[in-house]
Amino acid sequence: MLYMGVDLGGTGIKAGVVSENGEILSKGSTPTMKERPYQDIIRDIAALCEKVAGQANVTMDEIAAIGVGVPGICDAKTGIIPFCTNLGWHDVPFIAEMHKYLPNRVIVDNDATVAGYAESIAGVSRGTQSSVFITLGTGVGGGIVIGGRPYSGVHGIGSEIGHMIIKMDGEPCTCGNKGCFERYASATAIIREAKRAVEKHPESAILARCGGNSEKINAKIVIDCAKEGDATAKQVFDDYVKALAHGIVSLFNVLDPEVIVLGGGVSMAGEYLLDAVRAAVKPLVFFKTLPYPSIQLARLGADAGIIGAALLGRE
Amino acid sequence: MLYMGVDLGGTGIKAGVVSENGEILSKGSTPTMKERPYQDIIRDIAALCEKVAGQANVTMDEIAAIGVGVPGICDAKTGIIPFCTNLGWHDVPFIAEMHKYLPNRVIVDNDATVAGYAESIAGVSRGTQSSVFITLGTGVGGGIVIGGRPYSGVHGIGSEIGHMIIKMDGEPCTCGNKGCFERYASATAIIREAKRAVEKHPESAILARCGGNSEKINAKIVIDCAKEGDATAKQVFDDYVKALAHGIVSLFNVLDPEVIVLGGGVSMAGEYLLDAVRAAVKPLVFFKTLPYPSIQLARLGADAGIIGAALLGRE
Repeated sequence: MLYMGVDLGGTGIKAGVVSENGEILSKGSTPTMKERPYQDIIRDIAALCEKVAGQANVTMDEIAAIGVGVPGICDAKTGIIPFCTNLGWHDVPFIAEMHKYLPNRVIVDNDATVAGYAESIAGVSRGTQSSVFITLGTGVGGGIVIGGRPYSGVHGIGSEIGHMIIKMDGEPCTCGNKGCFERYASATAIIREAKRAVEKHPESAILARCGGNSEKINAKIVIDCAKEGDATAKQVFDDYVKALAHGIVSLFNVLDPEVIVLGGGVSMAGEYLLDAVRAAVKPLVFFKTLPYPSIQLARLGADAGIIGAALLGRE
Repeated sequence: MLYMGVDLGGTGIKAGVVSENGEILSKGSTPTMKERPYQDIIRDIAALCEKVAGQANVTMDEIAAIGVGVPGICDAKTGIIPFCTNLGWHDVPFIAEMHKYLPNRVIVDNDATVAGYAESIAGVSRGTQSSVFITLGTGVGGGIVIGGRPYSGVHGIGSEIGHMIIKMDGEPCTCGNKGCFERYASATAIIREAKRAVEKHPESAILARCGGNSEKINAKIVIDCAKEGDATAKQVFDDYVKALAHGIVSLFNVLDPEVIVLGGGVSMAGEYLLDAVRAAVKPLVFFKTLPYPSIQLARLGADAGIIGAALLGRE
């Protein structure tokens, strides 16, 4: 059985033909040009699907289903996308629109959810039945797998783990609340805290690395400086890891999955981040002598979206 | 099919014969006397099962399974109870010990989990497939139902929602961390905050109600005073509701169940609490125009433990 996976992003659309066990047979991409009407974007998605099918020498008849990862909320039952802030979409009848071009079964789900699902089939959490995938990017996304299937809650608003509140009355969040996990565990949080820190510590290597312009600070610069021993960067990194660990332990205490998978831009810090997070989590674990979820780095990288979306089509 | 449900508590053991759909046919109880060796307690549990079966005019042969709700962590696979702080139990081979007296299949799970399961079968969340039950008592317990079945995570350490961290670096918790949900949403939190408040506001009705002795403050007194318009009590109650709402919204954003059920001692405040919680949750909801989980009061009261434990036996 073959499946089509589509990773719909704010900048680009990627699609690929994927095998039953998550191997990509062909893939391609096209720019989103998100200012356009959704009808134009969806027409391009359908055309891209046909193109990558052709690259794999299969017809669309041979594609069991098309799965689509969307950077927003999906109503899997109706196929309507109520919210996709990134694309400015609101109540877009995605599946109906796709069916104007292609007759295949179409399944939609949140992009972080499908990336987490991909890792659980073909990535680091392969073979597990329950996992939580955390994307550490501009925001913090979540992908929950329970019983071997993606879990997005009853109203499609679950697995928004970036909006667990870990510090009531804390940093204001884009969602309107204060103290969301995202405000402490995203790349954006590292940048915010580094900017604050270099005001007090202009001697920090962070500022030198940015040519003295704190507007150029990014998460990689801060983590690189921390690795190299810069005290200010190390403090920002340690605070970041502490908050990330608190969110992870909350997930332990609620969901207790087999594995927590760290993905997204910040996870590129690799073992340096992973070792620090594991060390920070350990003393926070509730039942110290019982086994608890392992924490791992995502493995599929940029392909996770295509693979996970495609595998939504597996029944 | 008939099932036996056992509710094992620190003070008393309750057991009952329960029908397929959660109706109690007979019930009884015996004191726990928790200082005794676990062997003695489990012998009494087995004897109580036989007694209540007799009251329902059935033999133990007619009981499909014995479910037991335990105030601790359970390893459902091995039947061992690794932790039960309340009883001072550690690695107790519960099922093996029960089988010395009765041949029936025995299933163990956490007491809050089984109470939540009971509500989802025979109580306020009847007919739902996913719910989160929150016991607002001395601590805060959690019972998660997903796909119509109790969910305690992979290592049996999930659904400990009292230990989600809602205020990093906040009030110290018995678990060793700081800022756990339990520290803000338990009856204990109401009492702690009321004691602090009456030091500043000795004119509060709370203190009068306790004969001037703040050691006699309990959650009911504080909530009663709040209802009657005492400003100090109202502030304590409002802060409590705010924290409870923040924890509930975190559960929305992670699990997005059909319903959140409030049980435990504080929930006896009834509609006064429910209305306040619903009002506090509303502005915190992430997707304001989408449906979100409903919040309800538990209905089964003290019988939830027996019913839910019994229904663990249903396959």
